[in-house]
Amino acid sequence: MAIRGILRPGEVCIRVMDKEKARRHYGEIMGLHEVLEEDDKLYFKCWDEWDHHSVVLRVTDRPGMDYLAFKVYSDAGLDDLEAKLKGRDYEVEHIEAGVYPKSGRRIQFTLPTGHTMQFYAEKEQLGNTMGAHNPGVIPDDGVVRGVETPGLDHILLGGQDIDACLELFTELFDFDFVEQLIDAESKMKLAVFLSCSNKPHDIAFVRQPEDNKFHHASFRLENAADVVKAADRLGKYRVPIDVGPNRHGVTRGATIYFFDPSGNRNEVFAEGYVHYPDIPTLTWDTDELGAATFSQDFTPRQSFLEVLT
Amino acid sequence: MAIRGILRPGEVCIRVMDKEKARRHYGEIMGLHEVLEEDDKLYFKCWDEWDHHSVVLRVTDRPGMDYLAFKVYSDAGLDDLEAKLKGRDYEVEHIEAGVYPKSGRRIQFTLPTGHTMQFYAEKEQLGNTMGAHNPGVIPDDGVVRGVETPGLDHILLGGQDIDACLELFTELFDFDFVEQLIDAESKMKLAVFLSCSNKPHDIAFVRQPEDNKFHHASFRLENAADVVKAADRLGKYRVPIDVGPNRHGVTRGATIYFFDPSGNRNEVFAEGYVHYPDIPTLTWDTDELGAATFSQDFTPRQSFLEVLT
Amino acid sequence: MAIRGILRPGEVCIRVMDKEKARRHYGEIMGLHEVLEEDDKLYFKCWDEWDHHSVVLRVTDRPGMDYLAFKVYSDAGLDDLEAKLKGRDYEVEHIEAGVYPKSGRRIQFTLPTGHTMQFYAEKEQLGNTMGAHNPGVIPDDGVVRGVETPGLDHILLGGQDIDACLELFTELFDFDFVEQLIDAESKMKLAVFLSCSNKPHDIAFVRQPEDNKFHHASFRLENAADVVKAADRLGKYRVPIDVGPNRHGVTRGATIYFFDPSGNRNEVFAEGYVHYPDIPTLTWDTDELGAATFSQDFTPRQSFLEVLT
Amino acid sequence: MAIRGILRPGEVCIRVMDKEKARRHYGEIMGLHEVLEEDDKLYFKCWDEWDHHSVVLRVTDRPGMDYLAFKVYSDAGLDDLEAKLKGRDYEVEHIEAGVYPKSGRRIQFTLPTGHTMQFYAEKEQLGNTMGAHNPGVIPDDGVVRGVETPGLDHILLGGQDIDACLELFTELFDFDFVEQLIDAESKMKLAVFLSCSNKPHDIAFVRQPEDNKFHHASFRLENAADVVKAADRLGKYRVPIDVGPNRHGVTRGATIYFFDPSGNRNEVFAEGYVHYPDIPTLTWDTDELGAATFSQDFTPRQSFLEVLT
Repeated sequence: MAIRGILRPGEVCIRVMDKEKARRHYGEIMGLHEVLEEDDKLYFKCWDEWDHHSVVLRVTDRPGMDYLAFKVYSDAGLDDLEAKLKGRDYEVEHIEAGVYPKSGRRIQFTLPTGHTMQFYAEKEQLGNTMGAHNPGVIPDDGVVRGVETPGLDHILLGGQDIDACLELFTELFDFDFVEQLIDAESKMKLAVFLSCSNKPHDIAFVRQPEDNKFHHASFRLENAADVVKAADRLGKYRVPIDVGPNRHGVTRGATIYFFDPSGNRNEVFAEGYVHYPDIPTLTWDTDELGAATFSQDFTPRQSFLEVLT
Repeated sequence: MAIRGILRPGEVCIRVMDKEKARRHYGEIMGLHEVLEEDDKLYFKCWDEWDHHSVVLRVTDRPGMDYLAFKVYSDAGLDDLEAKLKGRDYEVEHIEAGVYPKSGRRIQFTLPTGHTMQFYAEKEQLGNTMGAHNPGVIPDDGVVRGVETPGLDHILLGGQDIDACLELFTELFDFDFVEQLIDAESKMKLAVFLSCSNKPHDIAFVRQPEDNKFHHASFRLENAADVVKAADRLGKYRVPIDVGPNRHGVTRGATIYFFDPSGNRNEVFAEGYVHYPDIPTLTWDTDELGAATFSQDFTPRQSFLEVLT
Repeated sequence: MAIRGILRPGEVCIRVMDKEKARRHYGEIMGLHEVLEEDDKLYFKCWDEWDHHSVVLRVTDRPGMDYLAFKVYSDAGLDDLEAKLKGRDYEVEHIEAGVYPKSGRRIQFTLPTGHTMQFYAEKEQLGNTMGAHNPGVIPDDGVVRGVETPGLDHILLGGQDIDACLELFTELFDFDFVEQLIDAESKMKLAVFLSCSNKPHDIAFVRQPEDNKFHHASFRLENAADVVKAADRLGKYRVPIDVGPNRHGVTRGATIYFFDPSGNRNEVFAEGYVHYPDIPTLTWDTDELGAATFSQDFTPRQSFLEVLT
Repeated sequence: MAIRGILRPGEVCIRVMDKEKARRHYGEIMGLHEVLEEDDKLYFKCWDEWDHHSVVLRVTDRPGMDYLAFKVYSDAGLDDLEAKLKGRDYEVEHIEAGVYPKSGRRIQFTLPTGHTMQFYAEKEQLGNTMGAHNPGVIPDDGVVRGVETPGLDHILLGGQDIDACLELFTELFDFDFVEQLIDAESKMKLAVFLSCSNKPHDIAFVRQPEDNKFHHASFRLENAADVVKAADRLGKYRVPIDVGPNRHGVTRGATIYFFDPSGNRNEVFAEGYVHYPDIPTLTWDTDELGAATFSQDFTPRQSFLEVLT
């Protein structure tokens, strides 16, 4: 059966400290389309997304993530999820349709790692500019620009009790437990990677001493050659690079880590394997921490485990 | 929720007329791994598949497809599918575990287009040679060779009542109706593309005057640059080409169509878009038949609609 | 020693029949930069060329090529070439500096195949927009667009006495005779490929019953992945395709052949091998005409030998 | 006129400390073909080179480079070069044909930076396995393996008087002075890049306090996508990486720096621009040292200026 229930990370609200710098970074450089502006917020969509927006930037005095919202297949799915959450004593808040622009009703709760998470089933659609009738294969000139990401891919969050998040996502939300990074000696889970799709991850958690931390938002590219083109562009605009072009061991994805002007980490990601639920959970341990994180030089970066917003 | 129910086209049984020629084509040239031989059958897996095999070649006196088997997430799913099929008066045949090598029990029925279809939930796993512990990102030398396809992608079948197949797959099997090609005047459906995943299609049907026809089996590649490398190799070995490197309008996939030594069409496929069920069905009509099928030269090929086995 | 004497095909003057259509094709679609307009002429440069222009379009009532001009390393080289030509009884015409815009003096003569050819050593330079001081690796946004060709690569001409052209280019102009296509039985040369650089060809001649014919002007791309992107774009704009993405046997170059709105053939070309003069001349014969021309489907196209302007 | 005089760096002799480890690195991993073994030497060629060998490994007790030999177009060119060198009071040593295996006579002298350099015009040819008659576009399976480099690209050397080397190569050897890296304040040249071809460099020199030092030998790849594949493979075999996939500002080449088992730096290189002698020398200064060396993260590496063998 096709993908049902929870579909994907459909909206992330990131805190930024300078509206114009953030507008340029996510707009001109990353290539997202600005679709709405409010006093303290900018709304963006990636070109090949159909929904009205996927990235919300809120201007405030510190970086980080306000909330992460997953899109759910149907309104009935929201009731189902609410019931499951309440069955585990999660407090579930109702947000009426229209409170969030272009959005139907939402339910909101707090993850064991302290992050605010939402589910919603409805959002106005803008389309991907090519329409649904004889759409063609590439958009008109000008629609695609900058790093040209077609879509938001996944989110990585940091906090203390990632085991509880793992249980929540696998048992209540029916995600697959795709990969994990464990301590070679204690076997403690240091990072867990979870999927509700064919992607190797839709969300991941890394163990951190502080809760409610944001590791990165990742944007999809078509292939590793496009990651190279993205690296050229990020270099041209002097976007601060955390880790240049490499390939993750976990997920096998081609990657670049970099920072938006407020210090939030972004990623471009391509070519991870096709995940299916009948593949066993892959386990990396810290004896191979370098290869697990950056396989092309098998060198761990301190910043991967320590720099979050 | 992660992909559940029907997972993917997990096994296709193709008829071939010369065992050694077929062995060389699917083995050395396409790069599949031969995992089992029987008197009249060869079993292959693609390198990045975990299950024991995905392609079965049966040696006989004519080309075509014997059956297509989808893997289902759980054994209970088989009961559920059987009940649904019987509710629509389909005859369902039981095949005990072990009748098909390395396979659990199967249920079998006939599609409205005359094709034999099966569901199964269990198959012995061989893994992808990299293991589940610190697996790395590329297999050892020698594991990947030839066209280097990592996996079976989708199957396209031909027959008369593709509308009934569309209804069956969307209503009983919960597939998404992703794209269609219609006659510009009569609006008759000429081809329908169906997905149970993030792929733009797992199975598709093209309207044909004769039932139970096989259009092609498609093998996945990572990206369009690898499709170019595949084209170099197919050319080197003088594999008969139906349509050289191009990009489909439908699915946006980079493609090459070619024939195995028995005349069965194969495809290599890469870079189709990421499908989600909340994207509307895309419709192409015959006014754009060229671009719908081969967007890079927008030229329809007669063989696409007429050559099947 | 570095490349001296004749450097490259530095300017081609192509006849077009509709100024605005030609402007859009070579400008917006191919991505050349329009640098000068005269009543009946448009001047273009590719983005990574330093000289003022490389493509001149003359508006008239029929397609084809007015002249091909090679850039020579030094003014003294013009005298040297003139002496050599006169030694073989070629008539050499002098064109004063300034007659051609932005250009130093030229010498002009007629090839044995009837084409007008020129040499010049000086042309005003515009640069590639990145400057010569800390230039960076990619130009500013907007500079690169459309098919994004960085430079004119080579020219292929048609006429009767290609043997005389071969002798002229190898003996007088010191080009390397890199490859040839010969008739398998008569051994007659059907096409000859000549280089004054590391490129597998700077100019080529194909035997034709009519003299002074233009086969194509070829524009360079970085790699085969960019050829795929070009194919997507040419398809989108419905540029008439002669032969879609393929790889030549001769030169090993990835290619697309297509037509400008006046019917002149263009090519995008990438990834030919690196030529050196100590590699023997490669010979293809008509028993392998398909693979020689289009190796990925080893299928000869009638148009390759017959459609010229 | 085609490339004449000095053609390319045709042979480099690198010192290694363990024959079997070196054999595996340059053979299995880099993909060069071993063509000859002597007591203390291994001879290799890259697959798309025609001459008998391009890399000689001499087993001894320390890493570094024994000599660099450029191939010259003709035997007469050797006399010409000898005369020029003697005109500047260089001592020129004669090495008879056959002293070096498969090689014609050589002349040898010492560069101002203390490196031993040779010129030769003749070497036995093995071809690239595809022959000169209907060669095809890719070699047989097994011929290409590992990192699959088709050819030696360029050499970078370190020493004190790089200004004298610049003068020698430009004035006596007629190389182009393509790029330079200078100190932003003193304007002192820190590195100079020289070409005798369309490549952005065939040889380069970096200023070092110690003479006769070896910075790296660089091997060509077709494009940046192949550099990514090389990075996957180098990572798999835990080849020590100096700088992972990136793009140089100088030359615009896609690059990976890594070390052979003896600590000699290697590079894979692709996609530098096409050099012509009428392009002005490009100058980078130390204010942009990061972008000049590694443009995708514009971060200078200490090792680039300090680690040589």
